[in-house]
Amino acid sequence: MLELLRARLPAIGDDSAVVEGLLLCADACVAGVHADLSLVGVDDLGWKALAASVSDIAAMGGQPVAALVTVSGTVDLALLYDGLLAAAEEFGCPVVGGDLSAGDGLVVSVSVVGRCPDGAEPVWRSGAQAGDTLFVTGGLGASAAGLAMLQSGRGRAARDLVAAHRRPRARLAEGQAARQAGATAMIDLSDGLGIDLWRLADASEVGVVLERAPAFPGASKAQALGGGEDYELLFAAPDRRRVATVFGRAGLRSPLPVGRCTADAGERRFGDGELPRAGWQHDFPVTNTPSAGVS
Amino acid sequence: MLELLRARLPAIGDDSAVVEGLLLCADACVAGVHADLSLVGVDDLGWKALAASVSDIAAMGGQPVAALVTVSGTVDLALLYDGLLAAAEEFGCPVVGGDLSAGDGLVVSVSVVGRCPDGAEPVWRSGAQAGDTLFVTGGLGASAAGLAMLQSGRGRAARDLVAAHRRPRARLAEGQAARQAGATAMIDLSDGLGIDLWRLADASEVGVVLERAPAFPGASKAQALGGGEDYELLFAAPDRRRVATVFGRAGLRSPLPVGRCTADAGERRFGDGELPRAGWQHDFPVTNTPSAGVS
Repeated sequence: MLELLRARLPAIGDDSAVVEGLLLCADACVAGVHADLSLVGVDDLGWKALAASVSDIAAMGGQPVAALVTVSGTVDLALLYDGLLAAAEEFGCPVVGGDLSAGDGLVVSVSVVGRCPDGAEPVWRSGAQAGDTLFVTGGLGASAAGLAMLQSGRGRAARDLVAAHRRPRARLAEGQAARQAGATAMIDLSDGLGIDLWRLADASEVGVVLERAPAFPGASKAQALGGGEDYELLFAAPDRRRVATVFGRAGLRSPLPVGRCTADAGERRFGDGELPRAGWQHDFPVTNTPSAGVS
Repeated sequence: MLELLRARLPAIGDDSAVVEGLLLCADACVAGVHADLSLVGVDDLGWKALAASVSDIAAMGGQPVAALVTVSGTVDLALLYDGLLAAAEEFGCPVVGGDLSAGDGLVVSVSVVGRCPDGAEPVWRSGAQAGDTLFVTGGLGASAAGLAMLQSGRGRAARDLVAAHRRPRARLAEGQAARQAGATAMIDLSDGLGIDLWRLADASEVGVVLERAPAFPGASKAQALGGGEDYELLFAAPDRRRVATVFGRAGLRSPLPVGRCTADAGERRFGDGELPRAGWQHDFPVTNTPSAGVS
């Protein structure tokens, strides 16, 4: 069904749309789908809703300008805004407007407008070249591992993992450093390294060989490969030394090389096997509700 | 509760936020709250969701640049996008991105980025002056009257009213003409003339005397005053002749004078009585859901 929409909305297909030099993106965060409110707070849901959209700006190498937030449902608004505004402060992305409405459940939709500083070109998903090295900006699987600890009642024993799940971070500085270091393609790891690497490879029409999926301490290999919601960045760049230099100069930890791009556009390899499409697959229920005519 | 949010989000309080010369606004359209899907189609809901946000740009005297749409719930997406994209075409506001998610019910959230042409200053709610004439850009109550006809099964006998309800129009040309004609304050009539005039008067710190509430043919006086969702514009301007000239030159019907602004900032008069706060009052359910700690 997403394919149907892509056909009708040709501008869609990257982390953010680019219009008149502006980066534009939006995410909906739904209680029970994107956050289990028996395990995390409504303030955490608010934080995550904003962080997820800001991450889409980070994945273009941009910085946020402002956010709009619509809320529908029944909620402790003050608590929700505690989280939203804490994230807004953290990521330098003021909430400037929005809308409130009644509704079933709780849906928090966040749109973010951003731009690349000094009119620089954003980094798309589609520019990777054969020979580029693939990097991730940090260890993976922490959010999934944190959720698993919460679900098993062991959250207190794993504060770092739980924090990664409750308050994910948009990697704005890393995204801009990657752009400055000559990144040819970039995507944020919102759904999982396996599926998101497939997306980058498909968009760039290159092959990819993933050599390793570096796990955050305490996360399993499966969580690192398919956990999703880490919001670390995955990017391709031709010059490993330049990447190390630019990140070092910015005071950022060096990104981790995880593989390479190849000329065989059909190649999707992980070690000796096939790269699994591991991660959160959008499962959007679609029905055919009748359209009422004029009665 | 909105007051609590306004205190925490000082930028909120006009139809659109203005950031770095951009107009930014967002609206959530919820099935069962903003549209009765037993009476109108999902395509109509899509149209209305986009039109309502574009109308907020019109109310600043701006024009839309692009829209972002998030959809959560179970829906005939192709039909929803029929309406969304028809409105996008009609209002010159391409949908460039968004998000899809599972969820209860159906929530369509639309954010629009706009700007004023040639860097012109937008028109706020807050600039009306004593002595200004109040205008509306057309007859009111059509949407409420159309809904009433649908509810009573007489939709076929009132196609104009039903069309006004199902496919409301954002008054972009009128908003820009009002700005060019020296409008000092403007608001779109999304909630109803009574309540929206209160808002304009409060923001501008002027008194207002409403002399008439012009009804769309077939709409009642009560529907004209409090029906809401007409998306006509209400504006204040000092020079009636200039207003008539600019609208005439643009090929637009002349806006209808409905009253005047006065120096008594507490005055809220309709004819010989008090101006009723007639219209859709946002009734947002708020509960205190506990925030889960780290378990």
